Amino acid sequence: MRRMKILLTTVALITAGTALGGAALSTAALANDEVIKLAKDPKNWAMQLGNYEGQRYSTLDQINAQNVKNLKVDWSFSTGVLRGHEGGPLVVGDTMYVHTPFPNNVYALSIKDKGRILWKYEPRQDPNVIPVMCCDTVNRGVTYADGKIFLAQADNTLVALDAKSGEVVWKVSNGDAAKGETLTANPVVIKDKVFVGISGGEFGVRGHLTAYDIKDGKMAWRAYSNGPDADVKIDPQKTLMLGKPIGDKDLGVTTWPGDEWKIGGGTTWGWYTYDPQLNLIYYGTGNPGTWNPTQRAKDGKREGSDNKWSMTIFARDADTGEARWLFQKTPFDEWDFDGVNENILADLTVKGKPVKALVNFDRNGFGYTLDRTTGELLVAEKYDPAVNWASHVDLKTGRPQVDDKYSTFAGGADTNVQGICPAALGSKDQQPASFSPDTGLFYVPTNHICMDYEPFQVAYSAGQPYVGATLSMYPAPNSHGGMGNFIAWDAGTGKIVWSKPEAFAVWSGALTTKGGVAFYGTLEGYLVAVDMKDGKELYRFKTPSGIIGNINTFEHAGKQYVAVLSGVGGWAGIGLAAGLNDPHAGLGAVGAHAALGQYTNLGGVLTVFTLPD
Amino acid sequence: MRRMKILLTTVALITAGTALGGAALSTAALANDEVIKLAKDPKNWAMQLGNYEGQRYSTLDQINAQNVKNLKVDWSFSTGVLRGHEGGPLVVGDTMYVHTPFPNNVYALSIKDKGRILWKYEPRQDPNVIPVMCCDTVNRGVTYADGKIFLAQADNTLVALDAKSGEVVWKVSNGDAAKGETLTANPVVIKDKVFVGISGGEFGVRGHLTAYDIKDGKMAWRAYSNGPDADVKIDPQKTLMLGKPIGDKDLGVTTWPGDEWKIGGGTTWGWYTYDPQLNLIYYGTGNPGTWNPTQRAKDGKREGSDNKWSMTIFARDADTGEARWLFQKTPFDEWDFDGVNENILADLTVKGKPVKALVNFDRNGFGYTLDRTTGELLVAEKYDPAVNWASHVDLKTGRPQVDDKYSTFAGGADTNVQGICPAALGSKDQQPASFSPDTGLFYVPTNHICMDYEPFQVAYSAGQPYVGATLSMYPAPNSHGGMGNFIAWDAGTGKIVWSKPEAFAVWSGALTTKGGVAFYGTLEGYLVAVDMKDGKELYRFKTPSGIIGNINTFEHAGKQYVAVLSGVGGWAGIGLAAGLNDPHAGLGAVGAHAALGQYTNLGGVLTVFTLPD
Repeated sequence: MRRMKILLTTVALITAGTALGGAALSTAALANDEVIKLAKDPKNWAMQLGNYEGQRYSTLDQINAQNVKNLKVDWSFSTGVLRGHEGGPLVVGDTMYVHTPFPNNVYALSIKDKGRILWKYEPRQDPNVIPVMCCDTVNRGVTYADGKIFLAQADNTLVALDAKSGEVVWKVSNGDAAKGETLTANPVVIKDKVFVGISGGEFGVRGHLTAYDIKDGKMAWRAYSNGPDADVKIDPQKTLMLGKPIGDKDLGVTTWPGDEWKIGGGTTWGWYTYDPQLNLIYYGTGNPGTWNPTQRAKDGKREGSDNKWSMTIFARDADTGEARWLFQKTPFDEWDFDGVNENILADLTVKGKPVKALVNFDRNGFGYTLDRTTGELLVAEKYDPAVNWASHVDLKTGRPQVDDKYSTFAGGADTNVQGICPAALGSKDQQPASFSPDTGLFYVPTNHICMDYEPFQVAYSAGQPYVGATLSMYPAPNSHGGMGNFIAWDAGTGKIVWSKPEAFAVWSGALTTKGGVAFYGTLEGYLVAVDMKDGKELYRFKTPSGIIGNINTFEHAGKQYVAVLSGVGGWAGIGLAAGLNDPHAGLGAVGAHAALGQYTNLGGVLTVFTLPD
Repeated sequence: MRRMKILLTTVALITAGTALGGAALSTAALANDEVIKLAKDPKNWAMQLGNYEGQRYSTLDQINAQNVKNLKVDWSFSTGVLRGHEGGPLVVGDTMYVHTPFPNNVYALSIKDKGRILWKYEPRQDPNVIPVMCCDTVNRGVTYADGKIFLAQADNTLVALDAKSGEVVWKVSNGDAAKGETLTANPVVIKDKVFVGISGGEFGVRGHLTAYDIKDGKMAWRAYSNGPDADVKIDPQKTLMLGKPIGDKDLGVTTWPGDEWKIGGGTTWGWYTYDPQLNLIYYGTGNPGTWNPTQRAKDGKREGSDNKWSMTIFARDADTGEARWLFQKTPFDEWDFDGVNENILADLTVKGKPVKALVNFDRNGFGYTLDRTTGELLVAEKYDPAVNWASHVDLKTGRPQVDDKYSTFAGGADTNVQGICPAALGSKDQQPASFSPDTGLFYVPTNHICMDYEPFQVAYSAGQPYVGATLSMYPAPNSHGGMGNFIAWDAGTGKIVWSKPEAFAVWSGALTTKGGVAFYGTLEGYLVAVDMKDGKELYRFKTPSGIIGNINTFEHAGKQYVAVLSGVGGWAGIGLAAGLNDPHAGLGAVGAHAALGQYTNLGGVLTVFTLPD
């Protein structure tokens, strides 16, 4: 049956175009236009990040700062899966698409019928993939394009489902769990290709971004995060760094000791954004392989050991994959400050000049504003006052000024370095921020947690943890009990406009709206609405489980709705999610959040809110 | 530490009374009085069935027929456990106690803090008990008394927890899973004893009710459902049947072929009610061992093969366990019409006379009204119009007039008998009904499902299914698509006052209130509020998962709340709960409810409702 369908499709393509290539191109353009159109219509929530720019902003304003206090739950839906629910529901027309963590079920729900299940996709995956998922069995959501739903399964299967029926159109393997490779990311569709990265930075996985043909899943290209220029798709004469060509060749090899780059991390499990005018796709790479920096230093020195291109923002041509520009935020990482956080595209005024900007809130605690055309660095300031590992970032070189007191390399392996801020889970992790064109500000869910870090020598073995560090995490000093903040950020000046403290890390993605209300979730399970002007709390509702998902909004039959997936877990809630009793297990995250167990339990539930009639 | 605490308690008891016996008695009276007092204060929901009489009625009236349409969710709480959630939350003062199916976690929640977890009890149980739980891993809830929370764990552990701390005060084993014995029932505390039955009717378990001392878990007595009079605690000269002494000895042995009574079922997994004035505890016994009736017939004849005392309502002295009266509803069962449903105690007018009544909605489809002092049968009428296995019940003999067309015995084993109504899951199963003293009516969640039934010879083997029948269940004819009804019933006349159809069996316990509103849940997950006058729907809300739990209400800080545990499963939802793909597996229940998977997923969630401020 499957074979028959493919044959029919091929025949149709041949009929429609003069050649297969031409047909594919024309269909591709349609797919891209459709996504842009759907994302522009605020009735939908057609992309996980709201639009290609990753702004997580809606022009809906029925729910506003005056009436949001009246918000009520309209309906709810259990996903039937425990553990951490990252990402959120997509809304395309009358249908909502909800995903789960492993085993990565997908449900198409009728919005009109308050969650009646139109179809379900429940893949059978080998549970042996679970032990190689470092930080819970999360998945950051499905993608809609071209009448298909794209899902990156934990077991490295990238699958395209028919959006109407849930039937598998095609599937392809993007990696090998036996090597520690897994998938957690939200794919993005640009033109005729679907893009997805790879997870496994704690297993020595070599990161890459791969483009597949949306029609049949055929690989178009793969760009690695490290290794020779050819693999990374760098042309040192053309690819820009801080606005100038890199010049030096093969830095993805030469900034590593020996063959360490081959197990060099730089995984790509964060979010992907896109500028249709520039035709550039933006994403970041994660920590270099093994957290123990002494194993990554050439001749025992920090100098010359940048471990490129880990911790790097890449801007690639979406057709060819060639790197247009790149920027390494944390050369020679010593703290697991994965550089994978979302790159939000917005047109800003920076130092009096209009800029096509890219704004990134890195795990390392610095908020970066770059020119997204050239990659020039414009602003780099701390968005978490606790940050102490570096005093500042030199705008000319892009390099942080590391404080040796908090270096985990300076004292060598087996030295316990105390009081590093932020902790490995960063001042912000994967939880995506929001940009409001109305206020010109960014609304950022943040963590406020510090750590002690002791690196140790570790041997690489495929599929085994390649961490090489023992961590302990705890609230930042003078945090007044708050391990998280929801902040408004001026990316033109690099300043916090206001900051609202929360008891735990704010591990949920933010939403802003034309109604003047910003939304986020808390690890205890509260959906919170605040006034975008001043952060004043307007509404707080206790959902069934802790929220590490992202808040979305949509319109149906003339009413605005707000939707969120609850389901505590993720790295922040790994203690609860994996049932760890040792508060210092789970890469140390449990210590800081052990008290979470007093507030919430596991359980994936979608909650849909609206105003009373 | 534990030993020290017990010693201190003993010293205190000796000091307080002249002897341990005296002290125990006085403490016991206090425990009993406390429960009655708590249950009378509508701010609490201190017992699973609302009060000792099992009425599930509240005098709260803040939420009424006019304003219930404005009901909104105030907070919610995931239990962290999938599969079927029967029972419901208890409320005692400012604390709510929530339980789960296997592994039978218990959470004490702060109501003020919208579900903050004060303590949790998470027992480790051998998962090998799951395969001997016939109809999902359900549990019907915890019991409060004497500063303790009593829980009947699946693995047959009856445990008493300190209600303030959750620490184990004592625990005792009530059965043996290796023999197919499990616990699913809600224990009841009367005076100084806690009472619990046993589950396992599909494994040839011999039923019993056992009383344990609430102070230390020491067994006070055990009364079997079948076997010699001494075991059953029958005195044939004193124990009444239809208002007269039984007379015949050892009917619990002589109405069985050979030793079949030893594996004769009559399990006691339903609800227990109590009349403090009469000091009688009421409960029912389940199906006789093996569903294949030919194996339970003496000399191949129905006559003389009543299989007593399966399918029987017992009224026992709560101190001694002696049977005051009993009434067998379905002698020689041929359809698995377990007689365990709750016996609601109410003072009614029957045929012009005031009666201290007991009302029972049996699985067999007849609604019985008895004099609860003597056990005399006053009314027995069909509360489900589909019922066809018997034409009527003879009020003089108490016997149903069986229609041989629907007898699964008449044609012998291996005969497929078609079109029997109701199906094995009965016109009502464990879902408790409600009685309103305001209207004098009963509000009953019902099923409207029929079956084909083919008995076959089965050999007994301890711990193995002893079912001996293959079933197929489907909607009742002329059900207009509705497999359930929520009805109002006049127990004085035996008539349906009104009936509201639902798409699936109504497997949730009902609540009535002085506000004139009755509540129930649906298998799709809707909480439904109806006008008690006429059954008109006033409110419908889609909770995260199908509801097989019971609706409760309470008051906190001047506001009335309604609470319900969602979590689809139970026998009605076994297909979803156990992940069965074969629609005819799971004792046949799946066939009728296979479409449930289009509406809801697994997931235990507490939802708490109130009116807007």
